This record gives sequence, structure tokens and C-alpha cells, in this order.
Amino acid sequence: MERRKFIHKFGAGALAGTGLLAACSNNTQPCEEGKQATGKTIQWKMVTTWPKNFPGLGTGAEYLAQTINELSGGRMAVKVYGAGELVPAFEIFDYVSAGGAEMGHGGAYYWKGKNEAFQFFASVPFGLTANEINAWMQFGGGLQLWQEAYEPFGLLPFPAGNTTVQMAGWFNKKINTIADLKGLKMRIPGLGGEVLKRAGGTPVSLPGGELFTSLQTGTIDATEWVGPYNDLAFGLHKAARYYYYPGWHEPGTILECFINKDAFNKLPDDLQSIVINAAKVANHNMQLEYIARNNAALESLVTEHQVEVLRLPDEVLQKLQDIAKDVVAEIADKTPFSRKVYQSFMDFREPVRNWQDISEKAFLNIRGQ
Amino acid sequence: MERRKFIHKFGAGALAGTGLLAACSNNTQPCEEGKQATGKTIQWKMVTTWPKNFPGLGTGAEYLAQTINELSGGRMAVKVYGAGELVPAFEIFDYVSAGGAEMGHGGAYYWKGKNEAFQFFASVPFGLTANEINAWMQFGGGLQLWQEAYEPFGLLPFPAGNTTVQMAGWFNKKINTIADLKGLKMRIPGLGGEVLKRAGGTPVSLPGGELFTSLQTGTIDATEWVGPYNDLAFGLHKAARYYYYPGWHEPGTILECFINKDAFNKLPDDLQSIVINAAKVANHNMQLEYIARNNAALESLVTEHQVEVLRLPDEVLQKLQDIAKDVVAEIADKTPFSRKVYQSFMDFREPVRNWQDISEKAFLNIRGQ
Repeated sequence: MERRKFIHKFGAGALAGTGLLAACSNNTQPCEEGKQATGKTIQWKMVTTWPKNFPGLGTGAEYLAQTINELSGGRMAVKVYGAGELVPAFEIFDYVSAGGAEMGHGGAYYWKGKNEAFQFFASVPFGLTANEINAWMQFGGGLQLWQEAYEPFGLLPFPAGNTTVQMAGWFNKKINTIADLKGLKMRIPGLGGEVLKRAGGTPVSLPGGELFTSLQTGTIDATEWVGPYNDLAFGLHKAARYYYYPGWHEPGTILECFINKDAFNKLPDDLQSIVINAAKVANHNMQLEYIARNNAALESLVTEHQVEVLRLPDEVLQKLQDIAKDVVAEIADKTPFSRKVYQSFMDFREPVRNWQDISEKAFLNIRGQ
Repeated sequence: MERRKFIHKFGAGALAGTGLLAACSNNTQPCEEGKQATGKTIQWKMVTTWPKNFPGLGTGAEYLAQTINELSGGRMAVKVYGAGELVPAFEIFDYVSAGGAEMGHGGAYYWKGKNEAFQFFASVPFGLTANEINAWMQFGGGLQLWQEAYEPFGLLPFPAGNTTVQMAGWFNKKINTIADLKGLKMRIPGLGGEVLKRAGGTPVSLPGGELFTSLQTGTIDATEWVGPYNDLAFGLHKAARYYYYPGWHEPGTILECFINKDAFNKLPDDLQSIVINAAKVANHNMQLEYIARNNAALESLVTEHQVEVLRLPDEVLQKLQDIAKDVVAEIADKTPFSRKVYQSFMDFREPVRNWQDISEKAFLNIRGQ
């Protein structure tokens, strides 16, 4: 049947949703507009930095894939691969950039070797909470800058999850003064790692799947990961005794999805919208999951596993904050683009903090039992 | 063309997304499965309690409609009506229940006359923040209870926006002790209103559009609305001088959308998923918008309009919290269903507060300049 006749018979409305109108009714050839035919299910691969189905993170990637599949009514089928299944955790960025898979799911600070400014799109020590960094993304220009940053790699990034405020990490000795961080070999990625370095420690970047063994064998002395829900799942309490808060280094870390731009551009408009909005749904969902589930895991760590939960002393937090200010500001000096990102982030941080002081923070401080 | 031939030619995949497979290829008759044919664009009306395009709330309803339209690739077209356009603000619940419109956009506490337990699905004084109440909705059973509560009215509710922590309101006299609330006629809906009543005030429920005039003419002595971004838009600073925080009565109010169940059930599966997920996207988006935009409005109120921003004294907050505890607990005694909702809410509140104490709250309290 010719396309014209098809439209006549079923109406343009029936086609609008299928992408056939914007695309073509031929299943095997690329269309003149460069759009993908959707007669066949579009198969996408999503590679991740997480162990397959790891709570919150791996399941968050699955949730994103399922949301796309469901919203598309089966026109798309995204399949998720755990770290190492197709490529090692820290190679997914290059792999998707090269077109090996259509999507990736990780954290922007893992790729700081490519551009240090990437770290602003994951987490900044003493920076923004989950709500605040997402507000910067959507209403403060953050997402545009992130997309500009990934443009040279042919990737389109979106926030696709958030850990909320993390824990400061697992230690086998008490941290009473800043000097206790000296000589400490600790897994801590991104800008937090740089802060630790200036405090005399040695930061190491390792994918989650390697943490437990590294800590147990003494390859590292300490580690942070996410929060109780995730840390319990990795069994980190079997390798360290003291569990410190608050997560000054990662107050609201964005988990990202990034999409190969060529693959994205081939999608009809409605499927592009479905991918973008599914990422938004997954982004919020993961945040809510952590808020809902961290406490039960924390209780289990304390009551069943005799973990000591401790607050970092004010003196330590103050010194870390002083160092962090320098570390973050120095990124701005690296390139004109870094300065632009830093400026946008800081311009958003100050007013949002003022507002949070009299809203969220003021409320949390007066709420009793 | 017969349906069988159509499938043969274009493949089942092409149909899956259109709903035609689950439905039928006939544009004018209802299908045997009770699903709507999607050959023609499905036209829905959304009635709201907000003035048309009112910042954050009205625009949030528009954003929800647009997201549905976009995700559906034009298969659905939802049109938004401001308060009073089709029906007055406080009649939208009954109107959608009766099938006059397919969707409504409001706040569950506006309908407390039907069932006092509804108020838990909007906001509870000293209850849950935006993140926490959404976590209760998605992971703590809150949404199931809400859907059970609206079931007798043939409505399906979803969170579709959140104000985050509100301001405590606008006053023309200073509130130094709890006695200053005595005799005060104040617009304050839901459970917060009941708390004010026990403190000796007179709560009034009015739609937003009537606040300014009511306050200016002295029909009410004080009012709360939302926060700086919204309150500035209504010009409330022209009718009151003191602007108090924090919003103890509404720490994370859910704005709802509710859908006529018959209309929803007629949608093919993928459009049902699109409506549900569009609500999730709109829910998060509104929250982020308030976080991003409140501070600029607050600054304008202070510097351009000489508003005095004041914190409610600890003594007042403590007394309000004591009263609130009773008010909220008493709802549980109304009906077995009320008790179930109350119990679910409180069972979620305690552990989530424990976790927030060492994460979000601990972080906000140590973050400096």
C-alpha cells in the first residue's frame, strides 16, 4: 500500500504516534528524513558501570529501560548489560561514543580524565543536594552545559538517577582530626578524591564491584560507596567497622544516562520524547527509592552487624570544606568551558542555598518526633 | 483493509504502539475489549483549581497536558481549563467524577469534606517533605491507599506536582506567642487549618484566585498560599507586611491529578502508561521549578517591596507541633480506612526521619558559604 493511501485509510492521527508519518512506511531502508522506520521493534543496548541488577543503580538502569519499552508500546526494546558483560565498567563511555551500544548508564565523574568539568554533572563536594542539582539541570542551565560537554563525543547525556546525600564512607579507624586522613588509601571518585588528596590521603577510583575485595585484602584502607541500602548489599560492613556521615563529598550525585547521538537522531520525534521523559521518570524514581530504603538497611547494619555509625567531627568537616572550595575553584581555571560551568553552578548554588535555609533546612530542624 | 492483512503488511510491532492491536482498526465504534480506537486524536479536558497559567500550579497543569500530548505523538490532546472556565475551582472533583472532564488538577485536601483521610495525600502539618511524601507514595504504599480512597468516586489519582516546603504565611501583625493566633481569621486549608482552629484562630478555605481581594478587604486577617514565587505573582505583599517561615503546615504539599476511571480504562495500554508517567514527570518538574525560582522572588519581595521575612518563634512552633500531633492522630479514629492511612503514613515517617537526620539535614546544617 502506498503511504498516501495508508494515511487516507487510517488517518494521520493513527500514524503520528508510530513515527511512520515523520518517517516512512518501509521497514528496511532508512528514510529520506534520516528517521528510523518503526515497523520493526527498535533494539537498543544499554551498557552500565554497575553489576547487573545491583540494588538502586543496576535496577535503576533496568527501570529506565523498562519505562522506555512500556511507553513506546513495544516499538523500542532496550536491553541492559551489567559491567563487564559487553565492556568493562569504565569503558562504557567510549563504547557508546563509538556506537557499540546506543545507551550508557554511569556517573559523569568517572570520565573526568576526558574533561575535568564533567565532575560538576555528577557531584561537587559541599555543592548541591539531589533536589538542588536537578533544579540546576532543568531550570539553571546545567543540562545545556552538560550536553555541550558531551557533544564532542557524540553523546547526549541526561540525569537518570540520584543517590541523594551519601554516607561519608567506611573506615577501620576513627577519624577524629583531619590528620587521621593522612596516608589513607581510600576509594573516592571525582572532586571528593581530590579533596582527600590535599588532606594527605590517596584517592583511588574503582568500580563498585571491586570495592569489597579491595577493602578486605587491604588494597585500600577505606571506601565510600553510596549509602546503607547499597553498602549493605556489597557487604562492606564485613570489611570495615566505622560508618561515617554525612556524605560531604557527594550530597546529591547524579547517575547519568548518555545516548549515542546518531542513534537518538534516527528516532521519530515521539520516541525521542519517550527516551527523554523516561530518563526523567527514572531519575526521580531512584531518588525516592534511596529515601525510602536507606533507613531499613541502616538499622540492619547497626543492630544485626554491629556497625558503628558516627558523625565526622565539625573540625574535620570544616577543613574539608575549606579545601573543597579551592579544589572546585581551581577547575574553573582549566579551560574557558570549565569556567563557564563553574560559574553557572556557583551562581545557582548561592540563591538556592538561601532559599533552602528558610524552607527545607528550617523545616527539618524544627520537626520533632 | 482487514485487520489481519494490515498486521501482515506492517508487522505487529507497528501496531503495538498505536493501541490498534489491543484495540481495533475501526475509528468510530468502541472495540470489543472496551478500548478506545486511536485512529482519531483522543480529546481530553483537564479542569483545574488554579487560575489559567498561574505560575508553577497552572503552568504545571499545562506542562502535564503538553507532556501527554508530546509522548503520545499527537494521539492524545489534553486541553487545560483554568478555575471557573468550565466549573468553579472547588467543583472539579465532582465534575470529573461525573465524567464532565477526563482529568482534574488540584489538591486532595480541598476535598476533605468527602473523606478526612484525603488530607494525608496532600500535606500533613510537621509531616513529610516533598521527597519523603513522594517516597511514601511510590515505595511506602501511599499511592495505593490514595487510589483506594478515590475509588468510590470513579477517580484515579496521581501526584502531579509539589510545592516543597511552603512559607508559613502573610500577616499584618507580628506573631510572637501562640496567643497572637487567637481570633485570627486566616486562609489555611486542610489539617493546618484545624491546627489553627485549636490555637484559637478561624481557618478559611478559599481558592487561590480569591486570596488577594479577601486579604485586602479584610475578609481574612492573614493567609498562607505557597511560597515566594507564587505569592509574589498574586501580589500578597500589597495586602500584608510580615512574611513568616517555615511552612510547618505544608512541608511538601502534593498537587494531584485525578482521572476519570472510565476514560482511563478506555485508553490502550501504552497511552495509560503515557498518562501515568507524564504525571510523574510533571510531579518532579514542579518541585524543581519551586526550588529554582523561589529565591529570586523572595529577594524581590524583600528588596523591592520591603517585605519583612521572619521566622516563627520556637515557642509558637513547638505549640503548633503539639496541637498537630493530636489533630493528625484524631483522624485515625474517624474510620477504619482513616486509621490505615494514618498508620501507613506514621510508619513511614519515623524511619525516613531517622535517615534524613544523618543525610539531608546533616548535610544542610554543615554546608557553609
